[in-house]
Amino acid sequence: MKSWIESANDPGTDFPIENLPYGVFEGGICVAIGDSVLSLRSCAEKGFLEGLTDATVEAARGTVLNGIMALGAGERSALRARVGELLRAGYPRDRELAPLLIPIRSVAMRKPVEIGDYTDFYASVFHATNVGRLFRPDSPLLPNYKYVPIGYHGRASSIVVSGTDIRRPCGQTRSPGGEAPVFGPTRSLDYELEMGFFVAENNPLGQTVPIEQAGSRIFGLCLVNDWSARDIQAWEYQPLGPFLSKNFATSISPWVVPIEALAPFRTPAFRRPPGDPEPLPYLFSPEDQASGAFDVWLEVCLSTAIMRERGVAPVRISRSNLRDLYWTPAQLLAHHSSNGCNLKPGDLLASGTVSGETKDARGCLLERTSRGAEPIELPDGETRCFLEDGDEIVMRAFCERDNFARIGFGECRGTIAGSRSVD
Amino acid sequence: MKSWIESANDPGTDFPIENLPYGVFEGGICVAIGDSVLSLRSCAEKGFLEGLTDATVEAARGTVLNGIMALGAGERSALRARVGELLRAGYPRDRELAPLLIPIRSVAMRKPVEIGDYTDFYASVFHATNVGRLFRPDSPLLPNYKYVPIGYHGRASSIVVSGTDIRRPCGQTRSPGGEAPVFGPTRSLDYELEMGFFVAENNPLGQTVPIEQAGSRIFGLCLVNDWSARDIQAWEYQPLGPFLSKNFATSISPWVVPIEALAPFRTPAFRRPPGDPEPLPYLFSPEDQASGAFDVWLEVCLSTAIMRERGVAPVRISRSNLRDLYWTPAQLLAHHSSNGCNLKPGDLLASGTVSGETKDARGCLLERTSRGAEPIELPDGETRCFLEDGDEIVMRAFCERDNFARIGFGECRGTIAGSRSVD
Repeated sequence: MKSWIESANDPGTDFPIENLPYGVFEGGICVAIGDSVLSLRSCAEKGFLEGLTDATVEAARGTVLNGIMALGAGERSALRARVGELLRAGYPRDRELAPLLIPIRSVAMRKPVEIGDYTDFYASVFHATNVGRLFRPDSPLLPNYKYVPIGYHGRASSIVVSGTDIRRPCGQTRSPGGEAPVFGPTRSLDYELEMGFFVAENNPLGQTVPIEQAGSRIFGLCLVNDWSARDIQAWEYQPLGPFLSKNFATSISPWVVPIEALAPFRTPAFRRPPGDPEPLPYLFSPEDQASGAFDVWLEVCLSTAIMRERGVAPVRISRSNLRDLYWTPAQLLAHHSSNGCNLKPGDLLASGTVSGETKDARGCLLERTSRGAEPIELPDGETRCFLEDGDEIVMRAFCERDNFARIGFGECRGTIAGSRSVD
Repeated sequence: MKSWIESANDPGTDFPIENLPYGVFEGGICVAIGDSVLSLRSCAEKGFLEGLTDATVEAARGTVLNGIMALGAGERSALRARVGELLRAGYPRDRELAPLLIPIRSVAMRKPVEIGDYTDFYASVFHATNVGRLFRPDSPLLPNYKYVPIGYHGRASSIVVSGTDIRRPCGQTRSPGGEAPVFGPTRSLDYELEMGFFVAENNPLGQTVPIEQAGSRIFGLCLVNDWSARDIQAWEYQPLGPFLSKNFATSISPWVVPIEALAPFRTPAFRRPPGDPEPLPYLFSPEDQASGAFDVWLEVCLSTAIMRERGVAPVRISRSNLRDLYWTPAQLLAHHSSNGCNLKPGDLLASGTVSGETKDARGCLLERTSRGAEPIELPDGETRCFLEDGDEIVMRAFCERDNFARIGFGECRGTIAGSRSVD
């Protein structure tokens, strides 16, 4: 499908008219199209949203996406359809609309959602196995893994938008042969390559979302970098899970790609190897098994301060695919609500590190370097076990398939700033 | 100190003029005094808050306590001082104010705070040891316990106010000798007796709160019942901690007791047994060691449906004291921010189950009944290993000391409703 905005028809763009991801900039909610953004507030003011419900127009004029996420499914799809009409080639009022477009390079994107609760899953069996092997060589995967979509609560307050510098955290660590732990800057700072799923409709406390309905409760997807301090994590995580090793910062991409844009990239659920159990009935639906996973490529690029100084291009250090998750997004959401836990519009469910079978598909440095034992060699001769100050991590994601427009997620970027001095 | 409200001078009241806890009812923010509540919105409208800053008056007119929590320390204490003046014996405009009082029995209290993030600690060494012994008889306490104030993120959306029925959750469990897990209602529903600490001032992301300042960042305390499904917990919690076994509901008391009201009940930090390590420097301040703990009695009473039918009085099944925590509230807050994690006004930090040395001081049924092996005998001949449908749990807390007014926390109440039918 063509847009009257030429850059949206470029086959390499992240943001063709089939995508229309939502974001928030200083002018309110906007949609990305080619190399521009379209302000929905301006659209509302100029009458381009007429005919939509009052609630829809009010939500479109908001400063975060929560209002849009909370709309009914019909209202949400009517809004998306309207934006698509406005931008389609042949739209009669294109000259009137053109002045409302702003070059994407000139806007500062904000955190798009007021995130109430943030849940991080552990849905990649490859990641769980790789990490488990480092800590428990004889039993890498725990007995619950293939039955329970393992997850835990993360910190909502420290979720930041792409581009925010990440300060190296301090914490307690204990060296392998050491006696007492010490407090100081982490020496094992890591990224985690993840996708996030934003919740649309609310389920009241005490009510579950059946697996058959769970897919339709997902509003859209974004990139997530769940920064982790591995030395702090190793010392603190028993018995209640990771805490300060994770909650110093989590980065998300500014763009939320609506789930409708991913329809052509639906794919069957992960093919469980022979001998693996079937999902329990509350996690099983034929439709979800047939098309509940998503074929999304994910990439991590690294550039060090020295590489940037020398003009060396960033190097790709991980590449994996979302379809390799052991659980579908609908299974994660159904499981989360299976005890009656209420999920609210704007809640964020993240996948956990998305790793694949091969070594270059390992989605964090802990796995990539086998806990620092096998450093990565960079093109300028530097090496990395974990992240150093000045390192910049850029994550990208995209869907590609013959005869379909490419759907991109933009990027999720963060640079490591030094630690504050320790008293 | 006397109040012109007679019921506030009753030595047995939870709410003397020295307390003045904040809560929220359908008329907005209020303060409890004796057997009444005083609406701060009404006070503002009638001119009783004149002279306070505009921000203070606006916060007092709010519908949640977050605005008051976010005020500067000076504004917060000026508001508390003003309310104290209004209610003190001899206040000249008492006849004008009297019509603004509402009997506490006639108001429906609401959840008082919009809780952004909820963190649950594990600060009772007695609880950690008792629970650890059930799962790891040879090493009940993990090596990190006496160095790290262990905590994890809980679910904010499912925090409910006292009086809300608690629906028995479903989840995956696996019987000890069983093969595959099954999905169904929990058979090991438990309460956890905790205190919560609400955060006052914000620390920006990347900035820590030194231990010397951490105590002053705590706005006030409330009761917390962190309901838990032990069978779901045992199966799901490795390796990332408890999740669905906890996040189906957490109850809090409607009243938040300002930290100033607890000044007479400050007490030295837990006396660590010989051989225990000193707190690391970032968790140590002489002042906190001298007076950073709080002498607060905590109680749990149980009544079953049959007991209530037969007119049998509720029976007390746990009694413990907050001063027995291994870590002070200031240490918990300093630790939480030690990696730069931003804490916001209205965030809730809970202590974890408060248990003491003796058997009746064990703050949950898991400990009280040794995981069901030693049932509790109730006065009407019933027994309990875990909670049954219709059981009502009432938690109370209070401070008592010669020559000081009793400070009470009201109650935190919840009744177990049956599970929804399983498909």
